Amino acid sequence: MSAASKSFLKWVLGMSNGFSHATEIRVRYAETDAMQVVYHGNYLVYFENARTEMLRAMGLPYSEVERLGLYIVVVEAHAHYKKPAYYDDLLQVNAILSELPSVKLRIDYEITRKATAELLVTGYTVHTFFNKSTNRPARPLKEFIDVVQKYFH
Amino acid sequence: MSAASKSFLKWVLGMSNGFSHATEIRVRYAETDAMQVVYHGNYLVYFENARTEMLRAMGLPYSEVERLGLYIVVVEAHAHYKKPAYYDDLLQVNAILSELPSVKLRIDYEITRKATAELLVTGYTVHTFFNKSTNRPARPLKEFIDVVQKYFH
Amino acid sequence: MSAASKSFLKWVLGMSNGFSHATEIRVRYAETDAMQVVYHGNYLVYFENARTEMLRAMGLPYSEVERLGLYIVVVEAHAHYKKPAYYDDLLQVNAILSELPSVKLRIDYEITRKATAELLVTGYTVHTFFNKSTNRPARPLKEFIDVVQKYFH
Amino acid sequence: MSAASKSFLKWVLGMSNGFSHATEIRVRYAETDAMQVVYHGNYLVYFENARTEMLRAMGLPYSEVERLGLYIVVVEAHAHYKKPAYYDDLLQVNAILSELPSVKLRIDYEITRKATAELLVTGYTVHTFFNKSTNRPARPLKEFIDVVQKYFH
Repeated sequence: MSAASKSFLKWVLGMSNGFSHATEIRVRYAETDAMQVVYHGNYLVYFENARTEMLRAMGLPYSEVERLGLYIVVVEAHAHYKKPAYYDDLLQVNAILSELPSVKLRIDYEITRKATAELLVTGYTVHTFFNKSTNRPARPLKEFIDVVQKYFH
Repeated sequence: MSAASKSFLKWVLGMSNGFSHATEIRVRYAETDAMQVVYHGNYLVYFENARTEMLRAMGLPYSEVERLGLYIVVVEAHAHYKKPAYYDDLLQVNAILSELPSVKLRIDYEITRKATAELLVTGYTVHTFFNKSTNRPARPLKEFIDVVQKYFH
Repeated sequence: MSAASKSFLKWVLGMSNGFSHATEIRVRYAETDAMQVVYHGNYLVYFENARTEMLRAMGLPYSEVERLGLYIVVVEAHAHYKKPAYYDDLLQVNAILSELPSVKLRIDYEITRKATAELLVTGYTVHTFFNKSTNRPARPLKEFIDVVQKYFH
Repeated sequence: MSAASKSFLKWVLGMSNGFSHATEIRVRYAETDAMQVVYHGNYLVYFENARTEMLRAMGLPYSEVERLGLYIVVVEAHAHYKKPAYYDDLLQVNAILSELPSVKLRIDYEITRKATAELLVTGYTVHTFFNKSTNRPARPLKEFIDVVQKYFH
C-alpha cells in the first residue's frame, strides 16, 4: 500500500494521525504549454502552493518559519501524471502530512479537477531544514515540532 | 545500484547500450527564488531542455516527432536535489537513455556545475506516446524505434 | 493625465463608463527571484490572472471566448515597477477596462499590497482578436461586444 | 523616429555610440502556452537573458555587479508583439545600449527568428541601481561607468 493510499485512508477515517489540507488553484494560461495542457513542471508549483496553505492552516505559516531563522528546503520531488489539467480548470490540491517529521519532512499531494472529481496528479516532496544564518542543516524548530505534534497522537 | 548509477557506469564504459548527451544551460535570474538558488521546479525544465537536445543529437528532433503525429508525454518525473545551483552558473545536464523504449520511455538526468564538477541534481522522467489526432495512447513511431535501436545492440 | 489615472478616477466616481475588477493573488515562492522579491516578468502573469477574472465577472469567461472560435492575443504589454512584492504577500490586482474595445482592446492594471495598500506596479496590455480556425485577425465577437457595451453608456 | 529604430540605425552604421549584442535562445516547451506559441510574459525572460549576455560581452558580468554591492533593478518593461515564436525555434535576441546610462539605464531589444529573419518582438527595459546593503537607490558603480563609457565617444 503506497504512502499516498495510506494517507488517503487515514484522511477518510478522520485523520487521527496527521493533517490534510485542500487548496483550490485556478489554472493560468501561463501554466499551459503547446500540448494545450498544464506543463508538467508546474505541478511542483501547485504542490508548493498547497504546502504553504497546509502550513498556514496548521498555524505555522512558512514565512514565519523563515522569520524564525529556518529554511525548509526540497531534497526530493516526485510527480505521477494521470490525466491532464486544462486552462481555467479549477483544481483541488490536497497536501497531506501523514508521518511525524524528524530530520526529514514528507508531504504527499493529490490533485483533482473540482468539476469532475477526476484524480489528475499525485506526488510527494521530501524536505530538510537549514539554518538561515549558518546555511547548514539544522534540526526542525521546537515551534515547528510543537505545532506538528498536535496532529499526531 | 540505482538506474542512474548503472547508466553512468555504462556511459563511462563507452555506452555500449544506450545514448547519453550533455547540454549546457546557463541559470537565468528568472529561474532563481528567494532562497537565492534555482527554484526546485525549474530543474524539470532543465531536464526537458536536455531531453530535447538528446533527441536532436540522436537524429530525431522532438518537433519532428510531433510533425509525424505523436506526442511524447510525461507520465512520471522525479528529482533528487543534492546541492543548489546559483544565478549565472553554467550547468551541464546529461540526459541518458539506457533502456530500449517499449511502451514507455525512461530518461535519466545528471546535473553538474561546470566550474566545479559538483553533482547538483539527479532525476528521471518516464514517458508514453500519444496519437495527436486521436488523443489516445499509441505505440512509438517506427521512425523513433529505428533511430533508437541503433544505440542498443 | 495618464490613462491609468483617468481610469482610476472613473472607478472612484462610480465607473460610469467601463468596468473594473479586483483579483486577490498570493505570491508563490516560485514567483520570487534571488533579489528576494517577485521577478518582474511574473507581473504579466498576474495581469493575465486579473484579466481572466475581469472577463469572468463581466459574464464572458475567456475560455468561453475560445470556445466561440476566437483568440484574444496580446500585442503590447507594459509594466511600471514602483515597489517590490515579497513571498506570501497578498496582492490586489485591479483590471480596468475604460475604453470601449474596437479592433483593439486595452486593459489597465494596478497592483497593491493588501496589508499596506501600497501601490506596487501599474501597467497595461493591448489585445487584438484572432480567428482560431483561420489564424487571421478578426473582428471581436458580437457576443463579446454585446457584453462589453453594457458597461459603457 | 523611435528609440529602437535609432539604435538599429546606429547598429547598422557601426554602432559608433553604444553597444549591441546578439544572444541565441532556443524556445523550450515550458515557455509555450495553449495557443501553441511562446507565452507573452516569457519574452521578458528572453530580454533578461540577452541583457546578461550583453553585460558579459561588455566585460562586466551582472553577477560581478552584485558582488560589487549593487543591484540593477527593473523599473519599467515594455514589449511589442508582432509575430509569434514557436516551440524549438532558434531566436536571436539583440540587446542594445544606445544611451549612456546616468541615474537610469535603458536597454532596447529586438527578437528575430533565425531561420527566417522575421522580426517577432521589440521592447525595452529601464533600470536603476540599488545598494545591496542599504537597500536604497544608488549611483551606478564607477566600475560600471568606466566600462560603459568605452562604447560612447
